Amino acid sequence: MAITAQQFDELQRRLAGGKKATAGAKVPVPETVSVPVGGTIFGLDPSLRGTGFGFVRVLKPRPVLIACGTLRCPSSWTRSRCLGHIAASLRDLVQTHKPDVCAVEGLFFAQNLQTALIMGEARGAALAVIAEALVPIFEIAPRKVKLAVVGHGGAQKIAVAKMVQRMLDLAETPEPDAADALALALAFAQETGRHSLTPPKRV
Amino acid sequence: MAITAQQFDELQRRLAGGKKATAGAKVPVPETVSVPVGGTIFGLDPSLRGTGFGFVRVLKPRPVLIACGTLRCPSSWTRSRCLGHIAASLRDLVQTHKPDVCAVEGLFFAQNLQTALIMGEARGAALAVIAEALVPIFEIAPRKVKLAVVGHGGAQKIAVAKMVQRMLDLAETPEPDAADALALALAFAQETGRHSLTPPKRV
Repeated sequence: MAITAQQFDELQRRLAGGKKATAGAKVPVPETVSVPVGGTIFGLDPSLRGTGFGFVRVLKPRPVLIACGTLRCPSSWTRSRCLGHIAASLRDLVQTHKPDVCAVEGLFFAQNLQTALIMGEARGAALAVIAEALVPIFEIAPRKVKLAVVGHGGAQKIAVAKMVQRMLDLAETPEPDAADALALALAFAQETGRHSLTPPKRV
Repeated sequence: MAITAQQFDELQRRLAGGKKATAGAKVPVPETVSVPVGGTIFGLDPSLRGTGFGFVRVLKPRPVLIACGTLRCPSSWTRSRCLGHIAASLRDLVQTHKPDVCAVEGLFFAQNLQTALIMGEARGAALAVIAEALVPIFEIAPRKVKLAVVGHGGAQKIAVAKMVQRMLDLAETPEPDAADALALALAFAQETGRHSLTPPKRV
């Protein structure tokens, strides 16, 4: 699904307000949060059956991995059981690691309405928990995450995982969902404290 | 958006499993829960800015309203703030009214992918809370709700609200979102204890 920058902006606006942008419509001002050295960024890649998560501490000369993994829900579980599991597990993780911010994918891809509904449900279960813990949530476009981590926006998943491994000096390549979550955290870390034409958008 | 019964079944299957049904695919068996006289049914119509809820006690000769209303989130709130508010408010309501089951719309309509994502997020925030409280959740198709309450599947919203008022012997017509939630609870009540070719589907 290729979209133009203009379409992307429009989608972001509509995601923000839930309706088509019109002249004079109130668009929330993107707000930035600077994570200080020693602070923690929570990268999150929610999905019903495999939610990737990664916590990264902002340190010099390089960020350090605190924890990462994938919340798996077997296909035998009902959707609601998965949603409850995602919420409960993320609540524990947030209480344990006390992140300063959370970074999620800004424009995520769905093949059709049903996929979008199911992805939306997993996201909603996850974001509600993080919002209740009063952790500010920012969206970063997938292209921008790849650009920040690999250096070009069309990078393959495995290239992202390899760069995440290198950037965090890990012994092994993280599994794909965890790697995507860590990439979001690392992309947010790179945005911290520098000027950007398209800063992560608070949602 | 008109769909055939066959398309509907396929959508339900895909919503259940998150993937296209294939020959031999494991489809969860619809499970029924019979709500006894004196039990409570929680009807829920989640949306980001106005989530309808209604709690109905199963009594003879007719069900009785316990509580209903709409959780409103102003358009100035961020999406995540809304999701946190929906989750926190519904948790309180579930703890207060201790429902035996929850009924939500089974196939809900989205005009496009972005609407579906946002609707999905609101649903996910809501359903996770209810699943965490171990309340079984059932989906009923909108058409079936109208059929149960008004007598035909193409009924207008106002007709549904008027029939809800009549069935629960209310002094006033409930507001639209609350009426939709109450209609779900009443439709579920009608299904309780009778044979149905298409019983509410546990999700």
